[in-house]
Amino acid sequence: MEQMTAPADFEMALADRARNVEQCLQALLTSKPREGEIARPEELMQAIRHGVLGGGKRLRPFLLMESAALFDSDGLAALRVAAALECVHCYSLIHDDLPAMDDDDLRRGRPTVHRAFDEATAILAGDSLLTYAFDIVADEETELPAETRARLVLLLARAAGMGGMAGGQALDLQAEREKPDEQGIIKLQAMKTGALIRFACEAGAIIGAAAEPERQRLAEFGQAIGLAFQLADDLLDATSDATALGKAAGKDAEAGKATLVALHGIDWTRQQLSGLVDQANALLEPFGERAATLRQAAQFIALRSF
Amino acid sequence: MEQMTAPADFEMALADRARNVEQCLQALLTSKPREGEIARPEELMQAIRHGVLGGGKRLRPFLLMESAALFDSDGLAALRVAAALECVHCYSLIHDDLPAMDDDDLRRGRPTVHRAFDEATAILAGDSLLTYAFDIVADEETELPAETRARLVLLLARAAGMGGMAGGQALDLQAEREKPDEQGIIKLQAMKTGALIRFACEAGAIIGAAAEPERQRLAEFGQAIGLAFQLADDLLDATSDATALGKAAGKDAEAGKATLVALHGIDWTRQQLSGLVDQANALLEPFGERAATLRQAAQFIALRSF
Repeated sequence: MEQMTAPADFEMALADRARNVEQCLQALLTSKPREGEIARPEELMQAIRHGVLGGGKRLRPFLLMESAALFDSDGLAALRVAAALECVHCYSLIHDDLPAMDDDDLRRGRPTVHRAFDEATAILAGDSLLTYAFDIVADEETELPAETRARLVLLLARAAGMGGMAGGQALDLQAEREKPDEQGIIKLQAMKTGALIRFACEAGAIIGAAAEPERQRLAEFGQAIGLAFQLADDLLDATSDATALGKAAGKDAEAGKATLVALHGIDWTRQQLSGLVDQANALLEPFGERAATLRQAAQFIALRSF
Repeated sequence: MEQMTAPADFEMALADRARNVEQCLQALLTSKPREGEIARPEELMQAIRHGVLGGGKRLRPFLLMESAALFDSDGLAALRVAAALECVHCYSLIHDDLPAMDDDDLRRGRPTVHRAFDEATAILAGDSLLTYAFDIVADEETELPAETRARLVLLLARAAGMGGMAGGQALDLQAEREKPDEQGIIKLQAMKTGALIRFACEAGAIIGAAAEPERQRLAEFGQAIGLAFQLADDLLDATSDATALGKAAGKDAEAGKATLVALHGIDWTRQQLSGLVDQANALLEPFGERAATLRQAAQFIALRSF
């Protein structure tokens, strides 16, 4: 890794995209029912908006839009599918925060949805958001050919479902009872956090009607940075507490959580991260300067921990 | 209504379809991951199978397949979309049974998913099933044109989401705090139970590539029997308790639940049901003898309460 701080133009690009996604989500999450809907209950919509709007770096939408931009498809379609992806991400946060899951009271400094409303409403808000994501992708307003819309629905469902994110969350619950081995940790993380990040990059290529080898390349790029994302997260937990609290390891270690950092240590993890950024950069090679922002994104994801 | 008991051949047709759907669901819910899935965690899959397999009349799939059969589309596509619809129905039951919602310990005489497993697993099982439904519909294995698959995804999302079933469930929660008026009850029920039944019939027509007026006719048929389904349910609650317990009204009335039966009484409801069956039959008129089974289905749905 040549450079360890995110350049200002990258931060600006990230914030720009986030603003666009926020606006798109705001428009999508009005209380006005769309064709085929009977009514949108106001309290449910408030809970949904609470869980989606007003925060977050919108990293997954950013990756999707930047991946699509590689193939000159930087328009409405990418923005809408990115918004759908963010709906899936936010549904997973709402359900993960529930008392039966992580039991969190706060998210981004605000009460979680089940605290601001109630548990039943939070469950339904998550269910509604997940459902709405497929609505948005399948809708012809997305201005993609039907073939592409159906393909993206399938790809998103596989990334989010029992064999992807939701399955990874189930493995994470199991891991609290029975510690996974190294392969188990890798699988868990690839499913729980990796699958949606991979989807972001691959979907961008599909929206851009990329040729098959390039779609594959973007999928592999997404897989590499998805793994980096999780490693950086684990490292952040291990090192930020070390600095802040003057102890050798953070709350994951305290909770006895099985992570690759816990297994291999901080130095090994930093080396892995560096290797993943190199791998990500290599995958973007054929795109030259056009992929500058995605390269910065890979670094941004990895350097969060330094 | 000429006839008030379900004929034996109808019961057999219903059971036949249910067997096919059960087999299809069984095949779809194996632990073997499909392309694009990383792994299917065994415990999650067990919870999902517990929530889906081994019970239920499979009424929604039946309606979908019979509607498709009207247009000579009685094959794999209808069966698979019917299985997807059942996944959505079963997800809603799993989430509705949760402690934060209806807090039910038993369903069809067996422990509910959160009782047989745990709450977190039940939430994830429901999430996974909902996601999988869109996977199944979007998959080209369904052997439908991409245009049709995308259209069905959109229709299903609108029927199940914030403006349909999930929204109806949210209104139902609100109704416990603030009694809805007649229009409110009608809206709530059209969303909570009506939307998926309407979807079943309309989707059948779409799978059968029905012409626009016929698709509309099937959607209206679905709407009529969806309303009848709920009225019959409310009536069943009011009258079965009346017989069994010797009191004038059942647990809905006891709970102070706002239903049309509570508002208008049993005789009015029976008249309404009779009118809805007539309306359903009239909508099926152009299909003649081919719609005999759907006509019986409308009666079956209405006569549950007699």
